[in-house]
Amino acid sequence: MENSLMKELVFGHKNPDTDAIVAAKAFSYLQNQLGADTEAVALGTPNEETKFVLDYFKEPAPRIIKTAKNEVAAVMLVDHNEAQQSVDDIAEVQVTHVVDHHRIANFETAAPLFYHAEPLGCCSTVIYKLFKQNEVTVPAKLAGLMLSAIISDTLLFKSPTTTAQDEQAVKELAKIAGVDYETYGLDMLKAGTNLGSKTEEELITADAKSFEMGGKKVRIDQVNTVDLNEVFAREAALRTAIEKQNKENGYDLFLLMVTNIMNSDTRLLVVGEPQETVAKAFNVKLVDNKADLPGVVSRKKQVVPPLEKAF
Amino acid sequence: MENSLMKELVFGHKNPDTDAIVAAKAFSYLQNQLGADTEAVALGTPNEETKFVLDYFKEPAPRIIKTAKNEVAAVMLVDHNEAQQSVDDIAEVQVTHVVDHHRIANFETAAPLFYHAEPLGCCSTVIYKLFKQNEVTVPAKLAGLMLSAIISDTLLFKSPTTTAQDEQAVKELAKIAGVDYETYGLDMLKAGTNLGSKTEEELITADAKSFEMGGKKVRIDQVNTVDLNEVFAREAALRTAIEKQNKENGYDLFLLMVTNIMNSDTRLLVVGEPQETVAKAFNVKLVDNKADLPGVVSRKKQVVPPLEKAF
Repeated sequence: MENSLMKELVFGHKNPDTDAIVAAKAFSYLQNQLGADTEAVALGTPNEETKFVLDYFKEPAPRIIKTAKNEVAAVMLVDHNEAQQSVDDIAEVQVTHVVDHHRIANFETAAPLFYHAEPLGCCSTVIYKLFKQNEVTVPAKLAGLMLSAIISDTLLFKSPTTTAQDEQAVKELAKIAGVDYETYGLDMLKAGTNLGSKTEEELITADAKSFEMGGKKVRIDQVNTVDLNEVFAREAALRTAIEKQNKENGYDLFLLMVTNIMNSDTRLLVVGEPQETVAKAFNVKLVDNKADLPGVVSRKKQVVPPLEKAF
Repeated sequence: MENSLMKELVFGHKNPDTDAIVAAKAFSYLQNQLGADTEAVALGTPNEETKFVLDYFKEPAPRIIKTAKNEVAAVMLVDHNEAQQSVDDIAEVQVTHVVDHHRIANFETAAPLFYHAEPLGCCSTVIYKLFKQNEVTVPAKLAGLMLSAIISDTLLFKSPTTTAQDEQAVKELAKIAGVDYETYGLDMLKAGTNLGSKTEEELITADAKSFEMGGKKVRIDQVNTVDLNEVFAREAALRTAIEKQNKENGYDLFLLMVTNIMNSDTRLLVVGEPQETVAKAFNVKLVDNKADLPGVVSRKKQVVPPLEKAF
């Protein structure tokens, strides 16, 4: 990894989840150890789960930025690459580094860059491998943050995105951090399902990502819960909030994935058009705009690819 | 790097140069050592320089393919990522791995993948680093091929794309291959400048790449020589051939870079429109569609970025 001398910002995607926050902190730390001058920032406030993680390891939340060009000429992206998931003025700064574990789309540079992506369950696992390759030691607190991100992204290894390398990384990081990752991990995941205190608008925004598919603006949000019924008791209000967002932001289609983290099933609420493309993508019949998707927990691996294909 | 069990093809860009041919052979060898089932192929016949390299190290030229889907479901790209530089049916196969040293543009996947790019002078240098990371030994013959690619891409370290890592890689590979890289390298570069036997159409095609800039189709070719006058004695015929290609292929703008590898200067011949964007990009006045660009030898680093910016 070659480093420039000018300060750069490092950040994950909008509506940051635990990995987006942690991967930025981890990659910024690694880059600074290698001689760069970087600061980890975020494109939004930490969610409930991430707050639990930051409190547990006594780590401050990152500074939030709305634009980058007013501060720096160059940036490093973690845990995303698609422009619509990045900082609003991403086109006006140079991207020098990307570390990611997603598909590549709607991403373009004018010059060569460092880009490292692997199809692993979590971006923090990819970054952990970069620490090893560069022979940089992971401090105990950062190890705790990184294992939290991996547990979050893999739902404690229940997600089909989980690889042997993610599990191995958590085990190694748990030793450095000195935590019982199974007990801690379940507490952390449950902290993220505290939905009662959230408005409908918060629920449909917190983990939402935008995609362009077949010329349509598609929005996909995921809510983790331990009780599907608790969420669907608010279905009418959720629909109203989604319809409002679709109209205000020009989304053609909104998919709300409500995922039960205890049994790894998802119930889908689909607002907008084309509904039949969603039905085709998952080979299901939508009843009252809803469908159960048993065993589906991963937006990246089980929702985006079939939907992309159906479009 | 995770590997699948199905056979995959590995290839570099259209109009292959030495790096495109060699990087495919090197990455295919590495992947096979790691347990994958791959075959290195090419999207065109080796040029004069590459023929010299393959003859010197007694390595057969790779099989040439026109399409991929008739053979495999998945492919690995080296030394390129832009769709218009890849196999014609690239959209119909899955890209599982990319190793590159160029900008990223016009590249999109539906699923996560292994993507490793670094801003180094040669893709074969990036691959050499992957051999080291994976603790796989480079065989002597492959070492000779890889140092040839690095010398080719960096013009024996004269190109501004050259990094300390490219030089170091050549020195280490030369020890493995048992060659005097300086003497061999100059012989190899000169072999690539044997232009007298080539038609104008061959000259403007051999190393040409297509780009989309500001909605325009831009074609950029580079010809290496030891004597600019030898090439520009054929200017009228070259213009006619370029005008014919622009018309037939819908190129709006064609830049022919004629590069003197002895003193690292380029003379540009610009056919098509907008001419003023080219003048602005390089801060020069085009006289009779030509401009001298002292010290310019790299399309990737010294031509594409300023042109992209001007558009």
